[in-house]
Amino acid sequence: MRLVLLGTLACEQEALVRGKLTTGPEIVPVPDDAAAEIRRAALESAAAAITMRYDRSMPPAPRLGLLQVGGTGFDLVDLSYLPPGCAIANAYGHEAAVAEYAILAMLLMSTRFLDAERTFRAGSWALGGRTGGPLRGELGGKTVGLIGYGHIGRALAARLEGFGVQLVVATRTVPPDPGRAHWIRGLEAVDDLLVASDFVVIACGLSPETANLIDARRFGRMKSTAVLINVSRGAIVDEAALYQALRAEAIGGAVIDTWYRYPTPDDPAPRPSRFPFHELGNILMTPHSSAWTAEMIERRWSSICDNVDRFFTGRPLHHIVHRVPS
Amino acid sequence: MRLVLLGTLACEQEALVRGKLTTGPEIVPVPDDAAAEIRRAALESAAAAITMRYDRSMPPAPRLGLLQVGGTGFDLVDLSYLPPGCAIANAYGHEAAVAEYAILAMLLMSTRFLDAERTFRAGSWALGGRTGGPLRGELGGKTVGLIGYGHIGRALAARLEGFGVQLVVATRTVPPDPGRAHWIRGLEAVDDLLVASDFVVIACGLSPETANLIDARRFGRMKSTAVLINVSRGAIVDEAALYQALRAEAIGGAVIDTWYRYPTPDDPAPRPSRFPFHELGNILMTPHSSAWTAEMIERRWSSICDNVDRFFTGRPLHHIVHRVPS
Repeated sequence: MRLVLLGTLACEQEALVRGKLTTGPEIVPVPDDAAAEIRRAALESAAAAITMRYDRSMPPAPRLGLLQVGGTGFDLVDLSYLPPGCAIANAYGHEAAVAEYAILAMLLMSTRFLDAERTFRAGSWALGGRTGGPLRGELGGKTVGLIGYGHIGRALAARLEGFGVQLVVATRTVPPDPGRAHWIRGLEAVDDLLVASDFVVIACGLSPETANLIDARRFGRMKSTAVLINVSRGAIVDEAALYQALRAEAIGGAVIDTWYRYPTPDDPAPRPSRFPFHELGNILMTPHSSAWTAEMIERRWSSICDNVDRFFTGRPLHHIVHRVPS
Repeated sequence: MRLVLLGTLACEQEALVRGKLTTGPEIVPVPDDAAAEIRRAALESAAAAITMRYDRSMPPAPRLGLLQVGGTGFDLVDLSYLPPGCAIANAYGHEAAVAEYAILAMLLMSTRFLDAERTFRAGSWALGGRTGGPLRGELGGKTVGLIGYGHIGRALAARLEGFGVQLVVATRTVPPDPGRAHWIRGLEAVDDLLVASDFVVIACGLSPETANLIDARRFGRMKSTAVLINVSRGAIVDEAALYQALRAEAIGGAVIDTWYRYPTPDDPAPRPSRFPFHELGNILMTPHSSAWTAEMIERRWSSICDNVDRFFTGRPLHHIVHRVPS
């Protein structure tokens, strides 16, 4: 019963994991800067591992029965590198935080709040109501298009319920009942969704089917006032097309939390794109922080530890996304 | 049938009013800078007036049957200066915009969005999730205390429905059923509300009962992390006590849209308080703009013109807040 915490992000939760696990496995933390021999030995004997990333740059894990991803996206795990019978499970608990982020993004972009705050603090009443300033907008009455209708999409739909928006959804797996949405259709409806929406929220997983889903042609279908919100994976939105659409003001704006470049040991603080998004005034940009709440950590690691306990006691696993044929 | 548009804010809606009224009264615009004689003559013969302000600094209006306030608060109308039989009505339509503002305020203050945006744009990943930045907060799970439960309070409660917050309310007129709230009590429960709440939203009208309702003693009852949001009238919150509470970081912060000083013809851009709130980092401050949306104008002036038409055709008025005894 050996559990490897692979990578620094997993290792940082070691105390939490020890507190939550009830099956008492041996726990081996392997941070990003661990010596190669320690990493090799840990993976050689690991029965289970918690990690965000596992690929051929790492030593083999021939006895691994559970690769528990520390988040939802498992695009950094090379499924073909795992041993026969290994189950791959992901984890949630982030959806409330990301849904709040998306609503905050919509409210910021439909109002002049940030401009009003900045100019008023500097001494100007020019954006005020009593002083006859320009009228701002409302979220109510707008159409929100969700691409993807998993945990995040449904959490967002629940929170939008009271705002009086119209919800349209394009998603891989269409539920039989549209529920809170005006319509829910397959991914072939992305074009129709883009034409209709004032806000487009990317909330699907990254896969070959969704990589570059929003390309230059599809930006051309969006309203000139529409705002794109990406809380999923950068690669779903074509990098050059996004930059061009914003720079040319072909759309109203964007709120982007997931990017094209991330810190690496060799380059700990890269700009998040090869394009200078930070020079643009019609984007709000955050460092992959939409899910990063204390409440998310508690919910997610409770779920992860429950799954590890299930594995070590032979009970059915939750959130299996793939199982390598035996 | 003479309708006076008294004050520049009402005069700015003259075209809208002409388009909406179906009873075709004579319409006399009297902007703030009108000559005294024009104002005197207009008010002398006015049957109805739309205005935000009417007091003894202005000529009498002996034939006035309807003073239609252009907004909700009628604290700038001297009721004792109106002729016998005159009805005073107010107007709504702002509640959706103000509720959105209050939720935006809560989301901004419970997350590190603005810090994350500013530092990431400048090139730092320090507040990011993948890079192990500090955890931000969530709105979900928090307790929201509403002081006042009129149009704004109920619009806010409806929009908070999906967020998983606990709502507590102190209001003058307690409804028989608490509805969406955990509890609704009279204004005597303000102290209990302050102790319990992570966010305190001031959404009651200004009256002798509510002036300085939140004073230094009551700031002392608030959580050290609590955020005060005022979208009603500045004078409900004691000016010096608010400044001291923020400056001493006795509370978590404030989002203030309604103030202690407003522009006048003599002083068109005053600081909104005698205290330098604009020097503080734990406040977000806006120029009385929370309701200032295109959608609000449309809803509100439809309601106002409907009431004026009702007056000129002798039908029952809506939103009467007072009637001077005949």
